[in-house]
Amino acid sequence: MGARKKCRFCSREASVFVRQANLPLCEEHFISWFERKVERTIRRYDLIRPGDKVLVAVSGGKDSMALLCVLKKLSGCMGFEIEGVTLDLGIKGNSYSARSVETAEKAAEELGVKFHVVSIKDRYGFDLDDAVRKVRRPPCSICGLLKRYALTDVAREMDFDALATGHTLNDMARFVLASFMSGAFSELVRLTPASASELPGVPRRIKPFYESLEEHIRTYADLRGLAYMEDGCPYANTAPTDRLRAFLEEMEARSPGTMHAMVRNYLKYLRPALASYLEDELPPLRPCSRCGLPSSGELCSFCRLRDRVLGTG
Amino acid sequence: MGARKKCRFCSREASVFVRQANLPLCEEHFISWFERKVERTIRRYDLIRPGDKVLVAVSGGKDSMALLCVLKKLSGCMGFEIEGVTLDLGIKGNSYSARSVETAEKAAEELGVKFHVVSIKDRYGFDLDDAVRKVRRPPCSICGLLKRYALTDVAREMDFDALATGHTLNDMARFVLASFMSGAFSELVRLTPASASELPGVPRRIKPFYESLEEHIRTYADLRGLAYMEDGCPYANTAPTDRLRAFLEEMEARSPGTMHAMVRNYLKYLRPALASYLEDELPPLRPCSRCGLPSSGELCSFCRLRDRVLGTG
Repeated sequence: MGARKKCRFCSREASVFVRQANLPLCEEHFISWFERKVERTIRRYDLIRPGDKVLVAVSGGKDSMALLCVLKKLSGCMGFEIEGVTLDLGIKGNSYSARSVETAEKAAEELGVKFHVVSIKDRYGFDLDDAVRKVRRPPCSICGLLKRYALTDVAREMDFDALATGHTLNDMARFVLASFMSGAFSELVRLTPASASELPGVPRRIKPFYESLEEHIRTYADLRGLAYMEDGCPYANTAPTDRLRAFLEEMEARSPGTMHAMVRNYLKYLRPALASYLEDELPPLRPCSRCGLPSSGELCSFCRLRDRVLGTG
Repeated sequence: MGARKKCRFCSREASVFVRQANLPLCEEHFISWFERKVERTIRRYDLIRPGDKVLVAVSGGKDSMALLCVLKKLSGCMGFEIEGVTLDLGIKGNSYSARSVETAEKAAEELGVKFHVVSIKDRYGFDLDDAVRKVRRPPCSICGLLKRYALTDVAREMDFDALATGHTLNDMARFVLASFMSGAFSELVRLTPASASELPGVPRRIKPFYESLEEHIRTYADLRGLAYMEDGCPYANTAPTDRLRAFLEEMEARSPGTMHAMVRNYLKYLRPALASYLEDELPPLRPCSRCGLPSSGELCSFCRLRDRVLGTG
């Protein structure tokens, strides 16, 4: 950060420099700046209302661990309740899933947050390793479907109002860019901070880190002393995604604020423009005829995947 | 191109491999494939109609020299007339403008195309070097404005129906991506293959290479033996643009067809969606009160620039 500067809000020496806001901050004021920023995102997009029960999806990585910590902090003053959940996806390589569960459970305990562990295998009869062996489809794509489905399913069963995930500004900018470049417009219109389910009883999915950069989330997690998992999933080897990520991070480094501008412009102009243009082409979601969760067809993608893995259906 | 293959259309050995179409071609069949592709672009977007008089803007670089050559070839069978024009922008570094004019003039003569040279200094009283010294604005931005204005002005004066420029698929993909990322939506909606002027007497601007990749244009120019200028303008040093260009070329190399898909999706969904959404916000173009060319305000950007450079106004 070049020459030593004072914190903008006190006389201590700054230890973090927020380039996007030209803001030198000491550790304590960085923490409060970061938490206030998340609070503003929550209020701006009406993600959580007073009295809400929020289930936080925790993978054990820095983003979701930081999310659990911030939401625990904000829950008091904003008047909502949180609990945490970790899926045991059954990834045996590097004992990945076992360590995920352990890491998340320990953090929840230290934060005093009620915590749930859900084994995909116990609940649905197969795990990610089984699905990867049986289905010719990239593991990350299967995993994404599995996690989205199981988390919504669990949150609905336990009567939560919202399911919070640790998707970051970097993730959102990448998704927006990737969908834009590939012309996946029906996915592009769904990249909002809150996806309200239109089906009764199905919790909405919310992204409180929609406007938070990963570099700030990491700093927050480190300053809070969170013991998160550093290593990536053994299945992850997704070159095109990494390429987009590197490109966006370079643009952000060169011109701080790039990702935020992209995502805000998307929300302000592009998404409403596309949503109204594609109105007739976008299939409305309806309950899956088997499980009742939102689906674009008769049977939802998860139920179809499950049939293929278990050889049923 | 790996193992030696035969040309798809004859028994000769292929010397070019069009990865986007999985098409091995000999030199002769590459040339006819490339020219037919440009013809299809012209027909698909109704760029040129029989009887049209088309002015081709030639800079001396590979793209515009190839454009002059293709349009000369197509003008016979498609029934339109072409002439060429080169602007002498007055860039003295590396004798850049002088060499541009010489290079373009020689090619036009060899192709038997009637040719015009327009000196910006003679016509408007200042050149690019003057403007760069007087106005605090990136040279490429001044140059873009100068070229767009002068070419339209000249084409109108000489009663052409259309002004053709050598913008490539790579350019269009880059412009689309850059406008998308920076949220320049009013520019984004204007990146079409033909921008029909709504003002009487003003020729439309057309981009016959809208769907042609630079690698194919270069191959075509080389096979046609065109003696184009290889060096870039001495002012060009636009890092962000180069970064976008490199990113897109890498994506294209990894997944041939990326740029084409992006630009087609833009035209098919994004542009109409944005155009109808922004309808009320986009300023309609009207004649500049001084020069009569299209302007979004009372005085057009060129007339305002000219006032600043000449100290008039």
